[in-house]
Amino acid sequence: MLTVILLDCALEIVPSEISSFKDIQKQAGRKGKKPNEILLDQTYHGRAMTKLDKSDRRGRPDIIFHSLVTLLETPLCKEGLLRVYLHLQDKRVVEINPEVRLPRNYDRFVGLMEQLLIEKRVPVEGEPLLEITRRTLTDLLSKLKEEHSGTTTILAIEGGKRTGVQDFRDLLPDDASVPVVVGIGAFPHGDLSEDIKQLFDLHLELDREVMMAWHVCAEVLWIYSERIDVIRRRYS
Amino acid sequence: MLTVILLDCALEIVPSEISSFKDIQKQAGRKGKKPNEILLDQTYHGRAMTKLDKSDRRGRPDIIFHSLVTLLETPLCKEGLLRVYLHLQDKRVVEINPEVRLPRNYDRFVGLMEQLLIEKRVPVEGEPLLEITRRTLTDLLSKLKEEHSGTTTILAIEGGKRTGVQDFRDLLPDDASVPVVVGIGAFPHGDLSEDIKQLFDLHLELDREVMMAWHVCAEVLWIYSERIDVIRRRYS
Repeated sequence: MLTVILLDCALEIVPSEISSFKDIQKQAGRKGKKPNEILLDQTYHGRAMTKLDKSDRRGRPDIIFHSLVTLLETPLCKEGLLRVYLHLQDKRVVEINPEVRLPRNYDRFVGLMEQLLIEKRVPVEGEPLLEITRRTLTDLLSKLKEEHSGTTTILAIEGGKRTGVQDFRDLLPDDASVPVVVGIGAFPHGDLSEDIKQLFDLHLELDREVMMAWHVCAEVLWIYSERIDVIRRRYS
Repeated sequence: MLTVILLDCALEIVPSEISSFKDIQKQAGRKGKKPNEILLDQTYHGRAMTKLDKSDRRGRPDIIFHSLVTLLETPLCKEGLLRVYLHLQDKRVVEINPEVRLPRNYDRFVGLMEQLLIEKRVPVEGEPLLEITRRTLTDLLSKLKEEHSGTTTILAIEGGKRTGVQDFRDLLPDDASVPVVVGIGAFPHGDLSEDIKQLFDLHLELDREVMMAWHVCAEVLWIYSERIDVIRRRYS
């Protein structure tokens, strides 16, 4: 079982400090929404965002979009062997139901994330597909470690142990019943806090250059899928 | 060296038969463009598209977007070991410069593809990053096979030989100088023609269920990256 946690996701509603900016008012108007009902997005709000604290870490919903599109609906996910969580910069944790079928279109994905952040869950009634939990990241990691004493927790991070693809493969358990948890930063620039780093046992650097979050997701998902040979299992 | 060819891409300009539809006129107007200057897109033109021949194979630029975002800017690509081509439904072949840095935002990607299909190349002057070639798919495959007598050509296709992830890994050459060519359908429904199928030596089915094109791209890219251990090479 693989659990992927996207850390410090650059995903939030437009904060009130900049909601009066013309560009933001205009974009919200075009969508028939108020500024505090739309996602912060570097592509459209770059100018206003210069007024924000830590602006270079924020407003990149496309990183979360590409990462989720990479992970969900894969054979591993369909086989019930993948769990995905989002950890937001305001510290809340979102649980993704592995059966969710996300829109392939970015504008529709953005609409869904707006609903999630405002209503706390999608859909608003019935079984949740996306839900903001009451757990902290620490709670989540503790729970995952408690489930199985052999759980490996890995953080993909610049400056970690240099790890080629074959070395990474060899680190993973080949028994699908042994859980692996992988944390991947989902923000464009900057570092993770020490508090977050110390929650993971192994710190691995997966390339010489910083990789996009979605490329790390793809490497982790497919190398793990190879390690446990998930597709042969689906044929037999 | 891995070459990925996205086959029968669902990527085209709005065809003239439906350019007078209100929805299309309106969307083009909003972009400040004419209907024959915008991409056909199922998300926005679903109703008008029902009038088109083979409409269920067409108008899904998001498939090409996700596939390219999955392939480009990866360690394999940065190492100069990946080439990517698009084969369009009108039979033209697009060559992608592996150094291209695509926009992460879908709307901007769409703008780039519109420029490519209209101007035949992006950018219009200087070294091309995306270019419509004069080659047919047959020419391209012949050229790739001529480059190296040991070239393996693989088609990922439903009904091919059932191939788990480890079997797939074992099929790939571990010597990075031996070329592998993989063809992947980049359209939402339907089959490839016999003419296309017979251009590839091996036909492999990579899962029990049809996979999204971008998931096949990720599997091929990362399993090949593991096979030749591309990242260790980048560290040494």
